[in-house]
Amino acid sequence: MHYPQSLQELINTFNSFPGVGPKTAQRLAFYLISLPGEEVEKMARAMVKAKKRLRYCSRCFSFTEEEQCNICSDTGRNSFTICVVQHPRDVLVMEKTGQFKGKYHVLHGALSPVEGVGPEELNIPRLLERIKNEGVKEVIIATNPNVEGDATASYLSRQIKPLGVRVTRIAFGLPVGGDLEYADELTLGRALEGRIELE
Amino acid sequence: MHYPQSLQELINTFNSFPGVGPKTAQRLAFYLISLPGEEVEKMARAMVKAKKRLRYCSRCFSFTEEEQCNICSDTGRNSFTICVVQHPRDVLVMEKTGQFKGKYHVLHGALSPVEGVGPEELNIPRLLERIKNEGVKEVIIATNPNVEGDATASYLSRQIKPLGVRVTRIAFGLPVGGDLEYADELTLGRALEGRIELE
Repeated sequence: MHYPQSLQELINTFNSFPGVGPKTAQRLAFYLISLPGEEVEKMARAMVKAKKRLRYCSRCFSFTEEEQCNICSDTGRNSFTICVVQHPRDVLVMEKTGQFKGKYHVLHGALSPVEGVGPEELNIPRLLERIKNEGVKEVIIATNPNVEGDATASYLSRQIKPLGVRVTRIAFGLPVGGDLEYADELTLGRALEGRIELE
Repeated sequence: MHYPQSLQELINTFNSFPGVGPKTAQRLAFYLISLPGEEVEKMARAMVKAKKRLRYCSRCFSFTEEEQCNICSDTGRNSFTICVVQHPRDVLVMEKTGQFKGKYHVLHGALSPVEGVGPEELNIPRLLERIKNEGVKEVIIATNPNVEGDATASYLSRQIKPLGVRVTRIAFGLPVGGDLEYADELTLGRALEGRIELE
């Protein structure tokens, strides 16, 4: 016995998503067919519409439906500071802090010689152009705290510093509300290195 | 800052699935828009197609694309034994044991006075009809090993026994409080072997 073809295809569709195993795919598929037909068509349309409308911002490479994203086209934000992130979703995470009023640049990945990801694959040449053309004074690097993120940060620093621009990286340390007891030694080591003077 | 509208709608779509939180929804949405356009349209079509084609088997209420499912229309299987399950996915789980050669009946739920689910909502009248019309000799109840499943089993037993039909329930080889969907084939096979007579 096997599932009807269309059901199996639906399960396979969900199963093709990252982090969705066979059981979850099955659960999602059964949920979907339990919905009213109009609801399913609405979902299908949302998928196709998002794929059709979304493109990369011509300036920062975040997702947008326009030529430029709403941050790049916001004249109220300063263009002297660029925050470099790996992924478009990181933009929203940074925005949630409410503390950054500059612009962004999305690399869409991190340097990884093993996987053949070099500076050209990461919109880095476009970042350097922006730094030169937009009068940037500081580049804040917010790549992930892992090997690839570290390598990308070092590379960017070597490229940007000679342009006479300040390059910083967001701090490593303990998560707020965390417990020293549960911090791993690497994080704690970094937190110690990056200690700041108390007034 | 917020996501472009079509992206937010896509995230909301995924977020509406059971067990898919905001972070996962976001991850799925970003994965989807990273795919080629044809791939996304293929997925959207798979959703709509599954919803349009799938219907309940007129006999056992499992999912099928035909009037009757491939188990009900399989003349090689005996019609004297009906295995009663709560959910269509449970049929496939039972089939994987390779130990059951009869037919199925899918209740699409379990009795739950609290949630207002009575015998009429569960295709139970249709099950009783089938027992009378199809010369059924044994009904194997494979509802979930929890309160609702137990109540459903007792109710079915009280309804079916007076018809002179043997009523059994698969054994508690299953972990109590668990869910049929997550049982492995071996445990389920044992449970099938060890089924006990209901009074």
